[in-house]
Amino acid sequence: MRALVKTAAQPGLTYTDRPDPAPGPSEAVIRVKATSLCGTDAHIYNWDAWAHSRIHPPRTIGHEMCGEVVAVGADVTLVCVGDYVAAESHLTCGACFQCRTGQAHVCKNYRILGVDLDGSFADYVVLPETVLWKTSPDIPPELACLQEPLGNAVDAALVEDLTGHTVLITGCGPTGLFAAAVARTAGAATIIATDVSDYRLSLAKQVGVDHVFNAKSDGAEAIASAILDITRGEGVDASLEMSGHPTALHHAFRSVKNGGRVTLFGIPTGPVTCDLANEVIFKGIRVHGITGRRLFSTWYRLAGLFKAGLNIRPVLTHTFPLKDFAQGFELIKSGQCGKVVLFP
Amino acid sequence: MRALVKTAAQPGLTYTDRPDPAPGPSEAVIRVKATSLCGTDAHIYNWDAWAHSRIHPPRTIGHEMCGEVVAVGADVTLVCVGDYVAAESHLTCGACFQCRTGQAHVCKNYRILGVDLDGSFADYVVLPETVLWKTSPDIPPELACLQEPLGNAVDAALVEDLTGHTVLITGCGPTGLFAAAVARTAGAATIIATDVSDYRLSLAKQVGVDHVFNAKSDGAEAIASAILDITRGEGVDASLEMSGHPTALHHAFRSVKNGGRVTLFGIPTGPVTCDLANEVIFKGIRVHGITGRRLFSTWYRLAGLFKAGLNIRPVLTHTFPLKDFAQGFELIKSGQCGKVVLFP
Amino acid sequence: MRALVKTAAQPGLTYTDRPDPAPGPSEAVIRVKATSLCGTDAHIYNWDAWAHSRIHPPRTIGHEMCGEVVAVGADVTLVCVGDYVAAESHLTCGACFQCRTGQAHVCKNYRILGVDLDGSFADYVVLPETVLWKTSPDIPPELACLQEPLGNAVDAALVEDLTGHTVLITGCGPTGLFAAAVARTAGAATIIATDVSDYRLSLAKQVGVDHVFNAKSDGAEAIASAILDITRGEGVDASLEMSGHPTALHHAFRSVKNGGRVTLFGIPTGPVTCDLANEVIFKGIRVHGITGRRLFSTWYRLAGLFKAGLNIRPVLTHTFPLKDFAQGFELIKSGQCGKVVLFP
Amino acid sequence: MRALVKTAAQPGLTYTDRPDPAPGPSEAVIRVKATSLCGTDAHIYNWDAWAHSRIHPPRTIGHEMCGEVVAVGADVTLVCVGDYVAAESHLTCGACFQCRTGQAHVCKNYRILGVDLDGSFADYVVLPETVLWKTSPDIPPELACLQEPLGNAVDAALVEDLTGHTVLITGCGPTGLFAAAVARTAGAATIIATDVSDYRLSLAKQVGVDHVFNAKSDGAEAIASAILDITRGEGVDASLEMSGHPTALHHAFRSVKNGGRVTLFGIPTGPVTCDLANEVIFKGIRVHGITGRRLFSTWYRLAGLFKAGLNIRPVLTHTFPLKDFAQGFELIKSGQCGKVVLFP
Repeated sequence: MRALVKTAAQPGLTYTDRPDPAPGPSEAVIRVKATSLCGTDAHIYNWDAWAHSRIHPPRTIGHEMCGEVVAVGADVTLVCVGDYVAAESHLTCGACFQCRTGQAHVCKNYRILGVDLDGSFADYVVLPETVLWKTSPDIPPELACLQEPLGNAVDAALVEDLTGHTVLITGCGPTGLFAAAVARTAGAATIIATDVSDYRLSLAKQVGVDHVFNAKSDGAEAIASAILDITRGEGVDASLEMSGHPTALHHAFRSVKNGGRVTLFGIPTGPVTCDLANEVIFKGIRVHGITGRRLFSTWYRLAGLFKAGLNIRPVLTHTFPLKDFAQGFELIKSGQCGKVVLFP
Repeated sequence: MRALVKTAAQPGLTYTDRPDPAPGPSEAVIRVKATSLCGTDAHIYNWDAWAHSRIHPPRTIGHEMCGEVVAVGADVTLVCVGDYVAAESHLTCGACFQCRTGQAHVCKNYRILGVDLDGSFADYVVLPETVLWKTSPDIPPELACLQEPLGNAVDAALVEDLTGHTVLITGCGPTGLFAAAVARTAGAATIIATDVSDYRLSLAKQVGVDHVFNAKSDGAEAIASAILDITRGEGVDASLEMSGHPTALHHAFRSVKNGGRVTLFGIPTGPVTCDLANEVIFKGIRVHGITGRRLFSTWYRLAGLFKAGLNIRPVLTHTFPLKDFAQGFELIKSGQCGKVVLFP
Repeated sequence: MRALVKTAAQPGLTYTDRPDPAPGPSEAVIRVKATSLCGTDAHIYNWDAWAHSRIHPPRTIGHEMCGEVVAVGADVTLVCVGDYVAAESHLTCGACFQCRTGQAHVCKNYRILGVDLDGSFADYVVLPETVLWKTSPDIPPELACLQEPLGNAVDAALVEDLTGHTVLITGCGPTGLFAAAVARTAGAATIIATDVSDYRLSLAKQVGVDHVFNAKSDGAEAIASAILDITRGEGVDASLEMSGHPTALHHAFRSVKNGGRVTLFGIPTGPVTCDLANEVIFKGIRVHGITGRRLFSTWYRLAGLFKAGLNIRPVLTHTFPLKDFAQGFELIKSGQCGKVVLFP
Repeated sequence: MRALVKTAAQPGLTYTDRPDPAPGPSEAVIRVKATSLCGTDAHIYNWDAWAHSRIHPPRTIGHEMCGEVVAVGADVTLVCVGDYVAAESHLTCGACFQCRTGQAHVCKNYRILGVDLDGSFADYVVLPETVLWKTSPDIPPELACLQEPLGNAVDAALVEDLTGHTVLITGCGPTGLFAAAVARTAGAATIIATDVSDYRLSLAKQVGVDHVFNAKSDGAEAIASAILDITRGEGVDASLEMSGHPTALHHAFRSVKNGGRVTLFGIPTGPVTCDLANEVIFKGIRVHGITGRRLFSTWYRLAGLFKAGLNIRPVLTHTFPLKDFAQGFELIKSGQCGKVVLFP
């Protein structure tokens, strides 16, 4: 088969031949129909310090995908050949405290598709049956492959109920945009979003954000003041920090009302200075660190959100054949894109 | 002023003159713009056993209302003359355990507008400032007066999060219909409703219910089986019992999935036989008894739901001048109505 | 090996020889050190209608146990030969909605040790490694085997926090007594218990209950009145219904305060008449149906409770060699016992 | 009457005469039986920047107290002359979003006894009836006056359930010690505490802490390693940060397990550098900012905790007549004390 492979410990990826995979007893082989680029893939492509420490070439990368089951191992009972499936990308250990208590999303020993084992930027991928998620044929492949990162947004947004509440989203990268779409479907009263890119703020409007602010051009004081005006002096019920940027982080804490809640999802590039007394303690707020997706309650909920009318189509801005992957990585570097999907 | 008064301990109401009210130090007088009929009002109109035991004539009735503040007492600080307000109908004691711990909706000593003090079926009503709720001018009076019963539906529906979940609503009286509209706005995946009236089931479709069943003509087994089909054999995540009818109650318990939740809101007319082992215990479910509205978190949330697009217009089926109240009570008896609003 | 076997579809059990078990690839063989009698075992012993419909002889029964791992299958990684273990008695499917969302305790396809597969009233039992629970050597076998039913009590008591709260426990069978001990360790303010047996009420005092009432001799009104006195007119924060008896059920609902919570754990022998309006809806309470134990958060929590000083020793009233099982079943029939433990 | 008064904008307090207070219509006068020193009082005594900006002399200070009602205003219904009461020190507005939704502890307009109005370091204090808390005569004055700061510890410890869980408490000042005592009563499995003072760590042992570490002499790596050993490699279920010190904060985050929770209660003296990615996000934890006490659910719960055996006696290390206040402030500066109580 054809696959995108990190063949050596250096920047770039090679579009090359790899042997067709065969399933182990509890595994299935999936013919990949669509697979999307994630920031993690860009780190590996660019071969940054994290990638250098974690990836052992040769490795086929990619972990956001959907496809059709084409072969199953002898012990497989959960899926059949012909099933249309997406995949949870975290392979959890099943034995740690977290796995045994319904918190497998923070498993202490998880492995990641396309990082610790060969991934989905390929014609075929082999996976344990337990991570496969049967997907409704109503969802086309270019959206079905996005369910994995969308699940992050579901948890970031809905870790506490948003219905009827006001929400600030700081950061309109793909997961921030997904979170906005989720908040809209969940009946948020008012959604406010910030980013430094007008391109991304225009996507935010398309997924239903009510008020957008450019954190670079509008100014911190003006934005804080506008948020107070919009919320009649209360501040927002919930802040979703989706950027990892320190300025956005302080916006998130500053604008949440006393007794409100903050989601931290965006990954800061290093330590951040926080005024915990005024930003967290005196406000009496709750802060939720969000990583991964709850297995598998998030996947079930996401299926329900699609039925409820969740519209993520505007976030999918570009598609390419797998061989033209380099164009996708260039777009990510430019910031002039939402999600980029590759078709093997 | 003109008012609808229970003048004697017998069926009926009298449209008559009453003195204009004046505010006490912490009270406001409101000119009533719209006021709606509730089942409680029908009980008083018909003078059933409950009404006989609770109402002491003469009493102006009515408790669902909105209007304009026209006079305020010397100590009032929360509202001004000219404010457009609705009112929480429960006047709570502020001193009991429940009131002191954020659970005033189950205050042990509450009094009800139009039951324990003169109500809103009148040109003017006087109320403590603390129960007034400033309402957006975007909401016209005939909908603004419905916020009180709508608050019941908000709590019945959202006592646990509905976003992305499947819901069964048994009973499509006005509060059941409101709950359906709330569930739709909250991003419920699929909403199923039952009633014995095709008229009401047609209203259910108008507020966004996906699947309706007539509990009389469709048959209990067929409905239970259809719900399993719709939910792919799982049962629903949440059942909202909004009728008080024993058959509906068993539908609600039977159709909820293991680990799901049931709201009990509809008031049975007497004791009900329950198979607690199979309906509650072995299923490991949670049951929430819902009464009143959370003070005032429900009112805030409701304001947010309107911003999120909550559409209750189809539930308002009839309006009359206050003097034509008898037509409204006839409609309620017939069941061929949603909410009936009177204009003083 | 020696085992207690239901050899034919009739009352009684036979103490007889059975082949020593061998482990499958993911299984372990445990030499049983202690195993306790449960109501389920008594149903099977007495061969009632439920047992007749569910048990297919020959079947070795028993499901509450602890012991030492003496052999493991080729794929076992979670336990080693020599480990001291108890066992979760529910073997869950791992594939249903409930299992995939952290609610395996209400798995739709679970099998029970000693019911659907051969159980622990024997010298040896074979079990999947995933249900084994490594137990601290500080807990002697006659208590370690009680962890399974004790887990039921943990969930019944702690489904909502009890610290600083007043609790009513209706029914002082072994699980009710365990729940009382758990409530005591959890820092309940005041624990009140009812039963029809003075013997069991005396055990209740020994596990830390503050006030006991005999539901037969003290009278429903007097008990309700006393509970109000004890709680200064408030009613209790939490009622744990552990008997399944209709009178106790009404005590539980009647005595809980507005906004409180009720656990339903005791299994009524048939349908029960409930005044849902006054007992659940107008009080605005939450009702939790409890079955099984949360896998495996309850087991972890139980280990923590033992460290916190949980004292269940008074509930263990009798021990016998396995061959003298008949004396144990006689004791259960008489009600003059707490837990009865058998030693193979 | 005699009172401790900040008479001028400079360090120190004056023990002097002040007029006896008279109650307003909804107020009560309390003869102070015992009143304790808080860090806030020390800030005012020492006249630091915060005190300078907030306190307007002349001001009688002190806000932790208990006493006997000796006079009531005309409208008072909640207390009677002779009642034994403590007081919530936060006078909340009753009108803001937080107050109207059961979150008065984060009221946007609260005033503090002894800061914004005359306080309890005096023979008498006058207070609105709504903040008075009837206290059991079983609790002697020197402990009853500690209920206010103890309430902080109740919320810090019990914002999530501790029963059966492992807990790390960083900081053994009085509120940290109170939190340890609460955790012990709540049935925590294992309690670990850190501080820089051996004196305070010895008090920690007296309130039931299992393992203590001196953050200065034991070393950060050794402590982190020891906590892992104690928790069998898991980390703790809950960290309570009660010191405000950056080193302690990192201990709290580092030692909590994936999916666990952290309370932030101690006030850092300035901004703190946090590694949010590794300390919060990737661990998937919840962080709770805690301030004040929940009105009045915390007070009710505290009454329940005393019944459950809560033992805070070891935390009360010193008592003085009111006139000897300077000795108390010296002790606080030295760190060689727990709580210091003054008797007017």
